[in-house]
Amino acid sequence: METLKFQDIIAARKVVARFLKQTPLIHYPELSERLGFQAYIKHENHHPTGSFKVRGGLNFMHHLPPAQREKGVLTATRGNHGQSIAYAAAQFGVKTTVVVPHGNNPEKNSAMRAFGAELIEHGNDFDEALALCETLQAERGLYYVHPCMEPGLFHGVGTYSLEIFESLPNLDAIIVPIGGGSGCCGAITVAKAINPKVKVIGVQAENAPAIYRSWKTGQCVETDSCDTIADGIATRVPFSLPFSIIKNGIHDMVLLSEEELKEGIRLALRWTHNLAEGAGASPIAAAHKLTDTLAGKHVVMVMSGGNLDTETLKKVLGYQL
Amino acid sequence: METLKFQDIIAARKVVARFLKQTPLIHYPELSERLGFQAYIKHENHHPTGSFKVRGGLNFMHHLPPAQREKGVLTATRGNHGQSIAYAAAQFGVKTTVVVPHGNNPEKNSAMRAFGAELIEHGNDFDEALALCETLQAERGLYYVHPCMEPGLFHGVGTYSLEIFESLPNLDAIIVPIGGGSGCCGAITVAKAINPKVKVIGVQAENAPAIYRSWKTGQCVETDSCDTIADGIATRVPFSLPFSIIKNGIHDMVLLSEEELKEGIRLALRWTHNLAEGAGASPIAAAHKLTDTLAGKHVVMVMSGGNLDTETLKKVLGYQL
Repeated sequence: METLKFQDIIAARKVVARFLKQTPLIHYPELSERLGFQAYIKHENHHPTGSFKVRGGLNFMHHLPPAQREKGVLTATRGNHGQSIAYAAAQFGVKTTVVVPHGNNPEKNSAMRAFGAELIEHGNDFDEALALCETLQAERGLYYVHPCMEPGLFHGVGTYSLEIFESLPNLDAIIVPIGGGSGCCGAITVAKAINPKVKVIGVQAENAPAIYRSWKTGQCVETDSCDTIADGIATRVPFSLPFSIIKNGIHDMVLLSEEELKEGIRLALRWTHNLAEGAGASPIAAAHKLTDTLAGKHVVMVMSGGNLDTETLKKVLGYQL
Repeated sequence: METLKFQDIIAARKVVARFLKQTPLIHYPELSERLGFQAYIKHENHHPTGSFKVRGGLNFMHHLPPAQREKGVLTATRGNHGQSIAYAAAQFGVKTTVVVPHGNNPEKNSAMRAFGAELIEHGNDFDEALALCETLQAERGLYYVHPCMEPGLFHGVGTYSLEIFESLPNLDAIIVPIGGGSGCCGAITVAKAINPKVKVIGVQAENAPAIYRSWKTGQCVETDSCDTIADGIATRVPFSLPFSIIKNGIHDMVLLSEEELKEGIRLALRWTHNLAEGAGASPIAAAHKLTDTLAGKHVVMVMSGGNLDTETLKKVLGYQL
């Protein structure tokens, strides 16, 4: 069984802290009243890249051997992972090439370019873009940063869970969106080490339920499509590293419809005054389905990212008019 | 001449740090390209109350004598100051009464109640609500926290400028929204002490230009109305403490139309993925009018708050459709 090392998450904190401020864990009294539990948001949308992934990128880049740093790195992304790698690479003076699927969010593309990445468009979704990396890696001699199989990324990402457990020792549950699964694996690893009574609850989209189905059946299940407004959790293929951790460590999972994901974005705006992307808002939407089991408890919802483009925001708000 | 003490801002930092994380100062590469200068945002919208004012509330409450704390405090607000006082009071176990004008933003009202404040509605605008405090103070024996005349508030608020100067020693200018003026006074005081070459630029609404007109004429000028979408800077009456500091310390001021303020909110969403209220977005809008003088410089724009209600957000976005 593949696993993460708690001590490597501890070590990653020092690396991450060189570049990033600790994100706030905010208690929202009004949201708590509505949900019937003490509602806290971990604001991973407050990072310079707008998502939690930057923690992983920085930790990965720190550990990359100098010879590899000189050659440059290569990865595939819908946006947040690519921004993380591009941002981290810029801090370490490393060249970055990023493969994105055709039709990828133009705002996320331009943000990656602004951090200095070279972009290549290929394939129709994240997993097809990822497949091109295998070829390019050999052709160009670049280090291929697999977004879902690189322990350095996972250990970096795990630092947000460390911050949560330290800031709120009496928490009962964490609700985490699951795309590739790195955030959730960090939460599981930290909970096991610090307080195994804390429940880790994952969230996926009904339209992109690969990890959910794999968890239910006990083996990796790919889906044919992953067409969801929450592009941060739009993956079709579960990978072995995250899946082996999630399979044995997660306590519950929630699937959300597209309507529920949109409602999550509106709830985040209304009750926290934060712009959350679909994935980032998904824990708030999921919480509404868990009010019975969570009543009276201390619950942290991870707002994983805020990179929502204005056109999508207008659609999400207009839908309610 | 009334003034602030730099050493009291330094002292306030320790108080504020007991309750709040340092807010991030984020460099935005894409916004920098558009504006032609190195664009940084100080994210005061990331506080638990959604605005910078909470720094002042905490510092004020820390210095309030125990006998006064037991009696409780009283103030008037459009929302952010009231949330600050209610939040700080809750930390210190102090009872809070807040006067708001009729028709005040219901979301801001309910947020203050959720922090434990008792609300009274009175008058048609901030200054009329404020006037009631004089009466209630005597009647109820409460400590009246004047939002624009209490040095403890100003010194607390000044800590964000301290953080800016430390994080970015080579900054050239700060753009700050001006309502009551506490944020701007902090910036002026810190700039004078640390680096007097840094230019402090204020922003007001064309529809609420009391400080602007006072600055132009050299004496306190009240306006008849202050009807702006940016309720955080909707004031009619300049007070002597902030005005005496701003009069002698500010380098420039910009007035924004309602259209420009709305555009600022859209620009903040698009280029920073943050929900900013009108005041909080005003420095980004103002920056577009200053590109000639700021070209190539390092400029900090203070996103003072993010408490924008969803109905107003819809209007702001719909306007562009």
